[in-house]
Amino acid sequence: MAGVDGSLSAAPPSPTQSLEKQFDVFKAQLEESGTLRERIRHVVSEIESTTRVMYASLLLVHQSRPTPELLEKAKSQIDVLKGKYNQLAEILGEHPGQYYRYHGDWRSETQTVVSLLTLMHWLETGSLLEHNDAQEKLGLNGPEFSLDIEDYLVGVCFMSNELPRYVVNQVTAGDYDCSRKVLKFLTDLHAAFRMLNLRNDFLRKKFDGMKYDLRKVEEVYYDVKIRGLSSNGESVGDQGIEG
Amino acid sequence: MAGVDGSLSAAPPSPTQSLEKQFDVFKAQLEESGTLRERIRHVVSEIESTTRVMYASLLLVHQSRPTPELLEKAKSQIDVLKGKYNQLAEILGEHPGQYYRYHGDWRSETQTVVSLLTLMHWLETGSLLEHNDAQEKLGLNGPEFSLDIEDYLVGVCFMSNELPRYVVNQVTAGDYDCSRKVLKFLTDLHAAFRMLNLRNDFLRKKFDGMKYDLRKVEEVYYDVKIRGLSSNGESVGDQGIEG
Amino acid sequence: MAGVDGSLSAAPPSPTQSLEKQFDVFKAQLEESGTLRERIRHVVSEIESTTRVMYASLLLVHQSRPTPELLEKAKSQIDVLKGKYNQLAEILGEHPGQYYRYHGDWRSETQTVVSLLTLMHWLETGSLLEHNDAQEKLGLNGPEFSLDIEDYLVGVCFMSNELPRYVVNQVTAGDYDCSRKVLKFLTDLHAAFRMLNLRNDFLRKKFDGMKYDLRKVEEVYYDVKIRGLSSNGESVGDQGIEG
Amino acid sequence: MAGVDGSLSAAPPSPTQSLEKQFDVFKAQLEESGTLRERIRHVVSEIESTTRVMYASLLLVHQSRPTPELLEKAKSQIDVLKGKYNQLAEILGEHPGQYYRYHGDWRSETQTVVSLLTLMHWLETGSLLEHNDAQEKLGLNGPEFSLDIEDYLVGVCFMSNELPRYVVNQVTAGDYDCSRKVLKFLTDLHAAFRMLNLRNDFLRKKFDGMKYDLRKVEEVYYDVKIRGLSSNGESVGDQGIEG
Repeated sequence: MAGVDGSLSAAPPSPTQSLEKQFDVFKAQLEESGTLRERIRHVVSEIESTTRVMYASLLLVHQSRPTPELLEKAKSQIDVLKGKYNQLAEILGEHPGQYYRYHGDWRSETQTVVSLLTLMHWLETGSLLEHNDAQEKLGLNGPEFSLDIEDYLVGVCFMSNELPRYVVNQVTAGDYDCSRKVLKFLTDLHAAFRMLNLRNDFLRKKFDGMKYDLRKVEEVYYDVKIRGLSSNGESVGDQGIEG
Repeated sequence: MAGVDGSLSAAPPSPTQSLEKQFDVFKAQLEESGTLRERIRHVVSEIESTTRVMYASLLLVHQSRPTPELLEKAKSQIDVLKGKYNQLAEILGEHPGQYYRYHGDWRSETQTVVSLLTLMHWLETGSLLEHNDAQEKLGLNGPEFSLDIEDYLVGVCFMSNELPRYVVNQVTAGDYDCSRKVLKFLTDLHAAFRMLNLRNDFLRKKFDGMKYDLRKVEEVYYDVKIRGLSSNGESVGDQGIEG
Repeated sequence: MAGVDGSLSAAPPSPTQSLEKQFDVFKAQLEESGTLRERIRHVVSEIESTTRVMYASLLLVHQSRPTPELLEKAKSQIDVLKGKYNQLAEILGEHPGQYYRYHGDWRSETQTVVSLLTLMHWLETGSLLEHNDAQEKLGLNGPEFSLDIEDYLVGVCFMSNELPRYVVNQVTAGDYDCSRKVLKFLTDLHAAFRMLNLRNDFLRKKFDGMKYDLRKVEEVYYDVKIRGLSSNGESVGDQGIEG
Repeated sequence: MAGVDGSLSAAPPSPTQSLEKQFDVFKAQLEESGTLRERIRHVVSEIESTTRVMYASLLLVHQSRPTPELLEKAKSQIDVLKGKYNQLAEILGEHPGQYYRYHGDWRSETQTVVSLLTLMHWLETGSLLEHNDAQEKLGLNGPEFSLDIEDYLVGVCFMSNELPRYVVNQVTAGDYDCSRKVLKFLTDLHAAFRMLNLRNDFLRKKFDGMKYDLRKVEEVYYDVKIRGLSSNGESVGDQGIEG
């Protein structure tokens, strides 16, 4: 392998040396990627414990009507989340174009975050928190770090899973009209999802589950109507039965 | 390998002899451990058949209101259990520091024991049998042999799994208020568990199942309320239909 | 939800309309992403059939000494591959920052490509085709579309899997020295990989398999040496039997 | 639940309060156990990287005769390991009787440690490192923290797995007598293991694998003998064939 001409110039590296040099580079790069992953994981675990606190507050809506105080307590955590996503965005900002390389590391937690934000928003307004507004609440409106649409949609499905239980408890507590409102919302949401051409994947499976939420809420609304418990004049339902 | 100088001193053992001697020791120790396991297994199988007797008695609460006689019959077995755990403690007492070595051999049966004790206690008092009280009932308050907290908590989860069926049957039998009482108990229990930072293991999985128990009991309570069957007259329920 | 004051201003959209509008956007974006995936899949399937052609040519090295003609035939496909990767790069170039979003769609095929390129290079030179050189051969040296290091390393592991069979067949054909050369190469490669701190994932699993390749080649080299078949006359081998 | 006599004494805690208090205790205990596990895991990961360094050195015995220098390099890490096990013992020493509770957390790494120690010892002396000597090397001779016998035996099985490859490479390098020595050692070891009454578990499965190591070494010894390659006068084997 030494220079054929026997000149004084340095011999080229042997294959073994060249191999080792190559793998030194790989080692450095794999370690850099491992360190980055560690940093991401640290922030994500903080996001996760923040959502646990928010969820514990929001769970109380199953025991009573959602009071402004209860919502305020959960909402106070949104800025904490925003700070964490800001940290994530900074970390990823050092590695342009690698958002989707590490996306799997915060995906599931972000879906939970969306489910909480959309539930809170629905409790306050009765409508769906839009994708843009969710992004803004989390400060995810940069060009490099945004809220993946599929994650947003999975989060909305998770939020839908919470609604049947909410309706059952609210009706139990005497808020009969709640079933009508939730049914309207879920019916529209389900119809909107049906427009999407979903591939055969996780999102599709989650959406398939929404059908059961809708069915359960329909049954509660049926119970309320058949017993003439709906409070307001809009509903004419039970007349046929009672007449 | 014999002494090079041909002296009178005994030759050191050959590697083969030394190996055999070693393995004789291992054989003795593995057999001792095997015998110990056999003894534990024998007692545990008796614990298991005692819990089967208790469970058979307790199952009758699904068919009628829990009478004192029914509970007495199950309670009479507690002292049998205490005797068995005493035997276990004695066996393990001969092997200090090895409680957790063999723990897996009585773990699952002890979780069942806890589920039965806590169910009986709840039927009598409406509250959760505390860990210390469960230990005392089983005579497990020595320093060497106690009731592992995770086993206690898994047992409590198993007890929770029994409650939806109990509520359904009690309401069927006309005890409408039962659903409210169980719902209160389970809601508190679920909230208390949520405070724990559970690792992603068996206990966490069991706790995740408690959510379904809670949901089911909420639905029974909902049925009772919406039909105006709760005793306190709050609701007006089915009058439209029945009138 | 319409303006309460009945003014002339346009009514804000109802929640249902707003929901539909949102989902129209999602629909468009999911379809765009689906179309992109289709385009990628089309190119990848062409890469896949090109590698099948190359592999069919290279397989012939197991039947005879690798002739220049045989290698030329496989090498002639490299430019075809380069063209395909160029197409992929163009498609992805329209969607900056999304390389890793769709990476899974060409990953496995690219690992196969690397295994073929490194095998050809080894047959010609006896050394490992470096990452940079592999990139250059495929025209993957742009800033946006490059050869992922882990894919390169997995491809190298696949190439290693081919070597035991190659050695067996070459020795059978009388090229006894081949086992020594492959053993040297694989020993160095295995040692270099051991320096990497691999996470417990796909690459690690593939690397673990390299140990068996090494062991198998060692056994072939052993057979050659013990029979005195190696060219350099060191060994005296089978004389007792043959004499 | 308030005092029946209506006295001024403080009311007993409500069931909910009492439940919360209980779970506060559980939370603290689970967290303590979680923290302990973290500390153990930290030390164990250091043990693991030390064994990786040792293994990298020892692997070189496959490429050449084991020189004293090569063994010295690996042996220099034993004191590092001893220090780590000392840390483990200190951590567990704070929690008497809980060795086996956390045993699973260092089990697998300790089996690897034993495989390395016994391999080094065999390379130096040709005999099996005894259990007591292994304990002493690791400073594991305290009453509370010792080397579990089953872990020791599994480690010995792992060491046996390394021997066929070693024999193949040594014979290739011309050390024909190596096969006889390893065969003697493995035959004795296998016979000793056969004396043990192993339950149907992990250790039994590992021991079952030793049969293949023995078979492989027998085949190498056969190759050496049948070709008359064994160097010393002891072996009379081939006479029947050659005569």
